[in-house]
Amino acid sequence: MQVGIIGGTGPAGRGLAIRAALAGHDVRLGSRDAERAASVAASLLGDHDYVLHGCANEEAALAELVVVATPWDAVVATVRPLAAALDGKVVISMANALAKQGRELLALLPPRGSMAGQLQAAIPTARVTGALHHLPASKMEDVGSGLRADVLVCGDDPDAREVTCRFVDSIDGLRAVEVGSLAQAGAIEAFTAVFATINVRHKVHSTLLLGGI
Amino acid sequence: MQVGIIGGTGPAGRGLAIRAALAGHDVRLGSRDAERAASVAASLLGDHDYVLHGCANEEAALAELVVVATPWDAVVATVRPLAAALDGKVVISMANALAKQGRELLALLPPRGSMAGQLQAAIPTARVTGALHHLPASKMEDVGSGLRADVLVCGDDPDAREVTCRFVDSIDGLRAVEVGSLAQAGAIEAFTAVFATINVRHKVHSTLLLGGI
Repeated sequence: MQVGIIGGTGPAGRGLAIRAALAGHDVRLGSRDAERAASVAASLLGDHDYVLHGCANEEAALAELVVVATPWDAVVATVRPLAAALDGKVVISMANALAKQGRELLALLPPRGSMAGQLQAAIPTARVTGALHHLPASKMEDVGSGLRADVLVCGDDPDAREVTCRFVDSIDGLRAVEVGSLAQAGAIEAFTAVFATINVRHKVHSTLLLGGI
Repeated sequence: MQVGIIGGTGPAGRGLAIRAALAGHDVRLGSRDAERAASVAASLLGDHDYVLHGCANEEAALAELVVVATPWDAVVATVRPLAAALDGKVVISMANALAKQGRELLALLPPRGSMAGQLQAAIPTARVTGALHHLPASKMEDVGSGLRADVLVCGDDPDAREVTCRFVDSIDGLRAVEVGSLAQAGAIEAFTAVFATINVRHKVHSTLLLGGI
């Protein structure tokens, strides 16, 4: 599958890009700066021959499946101009609105209740899902880290949820767990603050695993 | 340890009561109706000789460690009259403000950001912690269910967090993970909506397990 990552040069985007390429997807790592994207893509690839190349965000938005991986406070401004290209597409929101306070990360309450809700409102004809929120970026990028995590997937469109689950399941170490509508996104995103705080306080890279399912 | 459970006759309170008694604690299961508490305690005990008895909420509040297990919308009204008895004590909030909508549970936003925050404001001289939010009540009450879960513990008072972690760790199948201040409670409580929705949609009793810690 063609996977476009908008804002793919940050930690979240890089880890996802290399793992999606490893899974056999045709990955377009987007950035405002296509040259920077190309250099990040080249550094991720090293000597491997996966299909991963850097490009402008506009080109990443043309892929079959699009992931928005910008910092949370850049999501709306980055994606709104791309609304036409994203019409009808599955667009995965992985942003979490967090603020650092001392040794804790605190969850902020975005307008519309979640970043995924903000994104859906900015591109109303796209089919937005929320996923990939709780993953430790450094362990994603280190493909030999043995990362194992359950990934919560929510969204209002059942087909978009299914496409997102299939994409998540295609990535080594990840298991998709479908949660329900986009109304769940706020709780899922806020919980990233809990993970981040655990990681700071306990000096770990913890992951979500669900027992009993 | 003496453990008082305010509002202990509901599903959450019952499961905690029997497991705390099994762990060797002296458990006082409280209710508005002491007779009802006595009958619930007796039914939980069966033929066992653990230390578990039913009582009025006022008596439960006299225990060394107090857990508030009422439905979320009864927390403040139930606990405020007990403020004097709870002065200086560690009081664990396990309430989650949730609303059902179709096949999903949705997280509500309580005043002060969390039910634990509401509770702390109602009993300002107590040392409130948040814990025990994500546990499937039926699996808690069924002591042979093989339940294994990580329990997130937050609170502003470091000693109260430590007491709460020790209590959680004393219960078979549970592992405490200390998260930080009571500012984390909102995100922890809201995430219960995600668990409850997963459980409804997938017909499971899922539990939180953290990898990498």
